[in-house]
Amino acid sequence: MQHLKHCQGLAQVFFIRSQSSRLSKSIIPSLSVWDGHLSCCWRSTGGHGRQKYFNDRLPKFRFALAGLLAGTGAVLAYKLHQDKVQWAATSAQLRVTQTSDLPVYTLEEVTKHCSLDSGVWVTYKGAVYDITEFVAIHPGGDKILLAAGGALEPYWALYAIHQQDHVLEILSEYKIGVLDTESYKKQESANPLDPYSAEPTRHPALQINSLKPFNAEPPASILSDNYITPSVIFFKRNHLPVPRVDPEAYRLEIEGLPGGVVSLSLSELKSRFPKHTITATLQCAGNRRSEMNEVKQVKGLNWGIAAISNATWSGARLRDVLLSYGFGPEVAAKAKHVQFEGLDRDVTGTAYGASIPLNNAVSEEGDVLLAYEMNGEDLPPDHGYPVRVVVPGVVGARNVKWLGKIVVSDEESKSHWQQNDYKGFSPGTDWDTVDFKSAPAIQELPIQSAITHPAEGTSVDRSDREVTVKGYAWSGGGREVVRVDVSVDGGKTWHVAKLRTSDQEQHPAPPPPPGRAWAWKLWEIDVPIPHRAQELEIVCKAVDSSYNTQPDTVAPIWNLRGVLSNAWHRVKVKVSKGFKDQK
Amino acid sequence: MQHLKHCQGLAQVFFIRSQSSRLSKSIIPSLSVWDGHLSCCWRSTGGHGRQKYFNDRLPKFRFALAGLLAGTGAVLAYKLHQDKVQWAATSAQLRVTQTSDLPVYTLEEVTKHCSLDSGVWVTYKGAVYDITEFVAIHPGGDKILLAAGGALEPYWALYAIHQQDHVLEILSEYKIGVLDTESYKKQESANPLDPYSAEPTRHPALQINSLKPFNAEPPASILSDNYITPSVIFFKRNHLPVPRVDPEAYRLEIEGLPGGVVSLSLSELKSRFPKHTITATLQCAGNRRSEMNEVKQVKGLNWGIAAISNATWSGARLRDVLLSYGFGPEVAAKAKHVQFEGLDRDVTGTAYGASIPLNNAVSEEGDVLLAYEMNGEDLPPDHGYPVRVVVPGVVGARNVKWLGKIVVSDEESKSHWQQNDYKGFSPGTDWDTVDFKSAPAIQELPIQSAITHPAEGTSVDRSDREVTVKGYAWSGGGREVVRVDVSVDGGKTWHVAKLRTSDQEQHPAPPPPPGRAWAWKLWEIDVPIPHRAQELEIVCKAVDSSYNTQPDTVAPIWNLRGVLSNAWHRVKVKVSKGFKDQK
Repeated sequence: MQHLKHCQGLAQVFFIRSQSSRLSKSIIPSLSVWDGHLSCCWRSTGGHGRQKYFNDRLPKFRFALAGLLAGTGAVLAYKLHQDKVQWAATSAQLRVTQTSDLPVYTLEEVTKHCSLDSGVWVTYKGAVYDITEFVAIHPGGDKILLAAGGALEPYWALYAIHQQDHVLEILSEYKIGVLDTESYKKQESANPLDPYSAEPTRHPALQINSLKPFNAEPPASILSDNYITPSVIFFKRNHLPVPRVDPEAYRLEIEGLPGGVVSLSLSELKSRFPKHTITATLQCAGNRRSEMNEVKQVKGLNWGIAAISNATWSGARLRDVLLSYGFGPEVAAKAKHVQFEGLDRDVTGTAYGASIPLNNAVSEEGDVLLAYEMNGEDLPPDHGYPVRVVVPGVVGARNVKWLGKIVVSDEESKSHWQQNDYKGFSPGTDWDTVDFKSAPAIQELPIQSAITHPAEGTSVDRSDREVTVKGYAWSGGGREVVRVDVSVDGGKTWHVAKLRTSDQEQHPAPPPPPGRAWAWKLWEIDVPIPHRAQELEIVCKAVDSSYNTQPDTVAPIWNLRGVLSNAWHRVKVKVSKGFKDQK
Repeated sequence: MQHLKHCQGLAQVFFIRSQSSRLSKSIIPSLSVWDGHLSCCWRSTGGHGRQKYFNDRLPKFRFALAGLLAGTGAVLAYKLHQDKVQWAATSAQLRVTQTSDLPVYTLEEVTKHCSLDSGVWVTYKGAVYDITEFVAIHPGGDKILLAAGGALEPYWALYAIHQQDHVLEILSEYKIGVLDTESYKKQESANPLDPYSAEPTRHPALQINSLKPFNAEPPASILSDNYITPSVIFFKRNHLPVPRVDPEAYRLEIEGLPGGVVSLSLSELKSRFPKHTITATLQCAGNRRSEMNEVKQVKGLNWGIAAISNATWSGARLRDVLLSYGFGPEVAAKAKHVQFEGLDRDVTGTAYGASIPLNNAVSEEGDVLLAYEMNGEDLPPDHGYPVRVVVPGVVGARNVKWLGKIVVSDEESKSHWQQNDYKGFSPGTDWDTVDFKSAPAIQELPIQSAITHPAEGTSVDRSDREVTVKGYAWSGGGREVVRVDVSVDGGKTWHVAKLRTSDQEQHPAPPPPPGRAWAWKLWEIDVPIPHRAQELEIVCKAVDSSYNTQPDTVAPIWNLRGVLSNAWHRVKVKVSKGFKDQK
């Protein structure tokens, strides 16, 4: 609601053309390469045309994608609404142009309707809509009010989920008129600004969960091929457009220390503090969310098992930087948190933000980095160029990219993502009863493991006698993975897998100091195929140095945001009479 | 085997009379008080006579109790062996006295047979046994060789498990002769020394799992009545006899620091260092082992759910002590562990020992104490008087009692309990395949919770409409319990319990600093009784600040030592047509 005061100004600033045509060019070729591969994975992406792509993909992903939008909207509203409008035989696009019998408004008149009190009007491609009644059921919550009194295009450009026919169908119901020609021209003539126009080029192997903002994971089958994940296929989780930062102009601000605000250039950060390198795994809180969706619909991107990757990170230790600018017992006596702000901003200018507990930030053993290198090179744009925070052992969401500001504070970050998003709840908690204040912001993540080979639905050859099973395992908080158990009979009997800590099997990494095991372990095992088994239910579960284990099943850890999905990972494969037997 | 060099000397030192008669007096009265109560708990202790007590109790407990013995013996050996000797109709006691037709030996002759090479002979009540062949199947491993060439009595006095008829039956099979009268008198005349003669008086409420050494837990039903567990019912887990320590003569030795060995009196420890107080929960690694025994027999004391308690502890911080005697970066560059030795010793003089990682010992946030007070009073004898280590967040076994020595070292403690005992393994690992070097010593414990009310097998009244469920929850490593979920339908639907952090509900404890939540939380909830339910399967599971959760079931975390038993706790109760309905 606080955003409403901006509505007059905002409504006249951002206008762009529909992204439809660009979408079809950018998504489809990259995905079609992987059709053959993906057909044997847990999900299918289907055909090549945009319509077919969405038709195939969206029935599963539609509501999950809605979770991209901030706020606490009713995610099922689209579904209900879509059912309601199915009587409409003509396309939504047609409706937009059927304007002859409707009133004509000026942009000035539209601009006056910028609140729930005055009514909420918006424009789209020259038509005017009164969406006052829709606000309450908007899946993205009241962020829709940002567009009140102006054009929808800039917001839809930010969240590509709106680029769907059924969204236009819903909108068409609220149509009340058209803009006068002069107003429409004025809107059109404003230079269209796509906040995603400067996005970097991505590797075609990535499986895209959301294009704008960009969220993608590598195919599970290639994830465990490398102990150090190549940067180009390291999972990408952006909340907003990638900011392009001039390294010469870049300044990192630090607030909350005795000497006042510090402003640090990139070269100062690199030259004034020792360069510290760690190998650390990052994992999205939503990794394996798709398994929760199979239990009951949750809100969020439908990640598979590969929203986790491992890299080397180099930079200045946050501890060193804070100490050099006056952090000491006096600050520690009052401050409890270190907040981070990214340079990535939404249309209101609000930056992505997060915080971590102060003791983690300044601990001698915390290894929190202001990283400027990933895998020995400058950070790629998707991973926070020129500087990101790396908080090893802690959920990806606190590893703020494109770092612009650090604030030492007695309070947690007030950002949406810290306060009202990345938190865990009981399976019995729903969107009507949830109280985000009742749960702590996710920091350290629990023990995790998953099977990267074989893939669900594939076959193993009985004549091979054994099945090779591979995967990854990791735990948060610096807790080392000490064991991975693998079963091929659904968890009745277990075998202990061999763990790997480097890309060169003969040169394992030295064991980490206790409590500082930031990197995952890859694992592998050959398990005998049980006699007469027609199907194998392959299961893995890991144990960390605190002997924490994964829960057996998904349903009891289900939560409305679909985070912290770390039940045993299960993969079913057929046992086939193989080539050798057929001879 | 290294102990063999002592055998000549040892064999002539300790002799005691059988403890049978004392056992019957000391165990039975304390248990009979609780018969009525226990009958509605998860286990039944049965009648009053010693024979009946053992008959009822031992079929379940026999092999578990064998785990008291150090070493890696084959725990099932007794069972196999007992089956083999069931043809023996006469009592073992009779056999011991049937000596007329057997050779007569002198003590000198017996003493020569003190190794596997020379044969292993022992004496018991004047009879001589060649147990050479039994050594390999002794459940307590090769510790039996300590008695080689001498009397069994002192060792059996130390481990009361041997006070069983079937043990005498086994022994009788190996009888080869009798001692000559002079030798027997010499043994008899040696002043009998019961290493357990100085044990403290214990509270009659305690449920005894083993008398010598003393291991007992409070009844689950009273455990959660107090946020701070009264010292008298705080669970007791002793590995050896309780040493009686003269506080004036007490010295704590510290080795491994630059200035050489430090010797510190009790008054010096109290006066030279600030007194630091924490509230911390201790839990035995074997808490809830009985649930693993129900899956498949494990080796160890058959603990219920109450081998866990919470107390306040005051003492000097280990960090302060080490720093004051020269600990610094130079030591830290080499040392990796801090070892502890108790003043409790076995018959070979070997002290109980354990170690913790150095970083835990010296961390500013570790709160490791050299505690001399428990709940505001001097430590009770059972809890380590005059000084014990309290390592909050870490398994009870490392919280060494009757502390005699601290060694800062590059190595872990070499003690049996650190190297070959308190470790976790895969369910697929058995005593034939176990490699104790392959698993880390348990330090931090995983998330835990259990139901203390209602008790298994009791009834709830349908007319009450709700059932009140109570319990405790705790996690290791300073991770705070953030939520407890309770189900009354076996885990299908879940309710969030209310957490309690003090004995005064209106005065909750202030939230602990992050990573320093050492104390448990008690919890309670009133859950509606489902319509038409005839039986409730009440389940609890907790979540800690790293969002670790408990596994659903016991079998997949089963391990041969029965440690780390932290699956969902389940209690079944009947729903009865109550008084109000019957009116």
